[in-house]
Amino acid sequence: MNNNITTIAFDADDTLWINEPYFQEAEKEFCMLLEDYLPQHSVSQELFRTEMQNLHLYGYGVKGFMLCMIETISRISDGRASLQLVNKTIAIGQDLLQKPIELLEGVTETLESLKGKYRLVVATKGDILDQERKLKKSGLQDYFHHIEIMSDKKNSDYQKLLKHLDCEPSNFLMLGNSIKSDILPVLEIGGFAAHIPYHVTWTHEQHDHNLKHDNFREMKSIDEVLKYLPQY
Amino acid sequence: MNNNITTIAFDADDTLWINEPYFQEAEKEFCMLLEDYLPQHSVSQELFRTEMQNLHLYGYGVKGFMLCMIETISRISDGRASLQLVNKTIAIGQDLLQKPIELLEGVTETLESLKGKYRLVVATKGDILDQERKLKKSGLQDYFHHIEIMSDKKNSDYQKLLKHLDCEPSNFLMLGNSIKSDILPVLEIGGFAAHIPYHVTWTHEQHDHNLKHDNFREMKSIDEVLKYLPQY
Repeated sequence: MNNNITTIAFDADDTLWINEPYFQEAEKEFCMLLEDYLPQHSVSQELFRTEMQNLHLYGYGVKGFMLCMIETISRISDGRASLQLVNKTIAIGQDLLQKPIELLEGVTETLESLKGKYRLVVATKGDILDQERKLKKSGLQDYFHHIEIMSDKKNSDYQKLLKHLDCEPSNFLMLGNSIKSDILPVLEIGGFAAHIPYHVTWTHEQHDHNLKHDNFREMKSIDEVLKYLPQY
Repeated sequence: MNNNITTIAFDADDTLWINEPYFQEAEKEFCMLLEDYLPQHSVSQELFRTEMQNLHLYGYGVKGFMLCMIETISRISDGRASLQLVNKTIAIGQDLLQKPIELLEGVTETLESLKGKYRLVVATKGDILDQERKLKKSGLQDYFHHIEIMSDKKNSDYQKLLKHLDCEPSNFLMLGNSIKSDILPVLEIGGFAAHIPYHVTWTHEQHDHNLKHDNFREMKSIDEVLKYLPQY
């Protein structure tokens, strides 16, 4: 791929460990709670609308998701639902904050191979305490020089990250499951990026692509990255 | 104070700009909403209890505060309150997320004097998007090399910060308004700390002290720091 990569950043959710299926499970439970008012798929649409409306205020993560579910209850039921539904929704969210961490295939082996040869960082969106909790539970903490919780993953956010890591784009490789958040902005600022698709993607991150770019690789699994790095 | 300080970290809320008065105003509004169920000071106590119960899950910041207010409505009203109260509470929280930034006295002048001579960073707790928003609104962004959002401010969190900044404790000075979060842990790991009290402090951060320590200074205002640094 390139001879000069020194720093490899990994997206966390659905790249290192399972996340989106837990969110979808939580959302399904929530939609079932509101079935008396609306069919499940419409509840889901209303929730997504609330999330998009509040994204500029709440950012990413479980706490914002919980607040959006609660707001959606009130709107869908026209203020008539009982507080029991709110309590159940808080329980769904708190449960989500305490999920076990299930690593994706090949993650530990890949990190073990890269360790000591590259500076490895985690670059993720979400609530800081929650992302730190997941990293701790994952047992992967010691592989990483640094965990960067980003408020968003746009060009300027990656520029800030690189400045902060004191790293040139041409020395930087990002690995992740979201074309929109992990790949396109990194390519746009001159870095390298590898896409490892995950079978479930949040609507907000969905992005059809037929991407061809010298600095881009599509991979089936995380360990393929070793093939593209000069030391392997 | 010391000849070797190279890095100065500033707490943000109530050190660089006003924050706690906004929280207290929000809490007062919230307590008034629940007056039909409990006297205001009891609502406040119940809210604090809820916050402490959930701190390990939510961490610090406005979103967790909102979720705790909502949970408190349900408990205090025994599930009988209407969703209108929840809506009003969400509005109080969203309002808090959009407050203007009012800088504290002497902040800009002090940063201007330190600029270029020390590496300046912000070290703060809270929700990442919210803290970044406040820094942006403050107009102070360009003074800082880096903003570190910390999930907590205990010894180990400062150790992580210093490792990450590649800075020895003896080269590090922390300025802040909370003895518990900004001063004691920094002194314990061998750094320097200066306390600039603010007239309102959140119950959770309150800490009586009669601190004497070679690496510690009590200051009346932020510009006093210049007196203790060798270049001034």
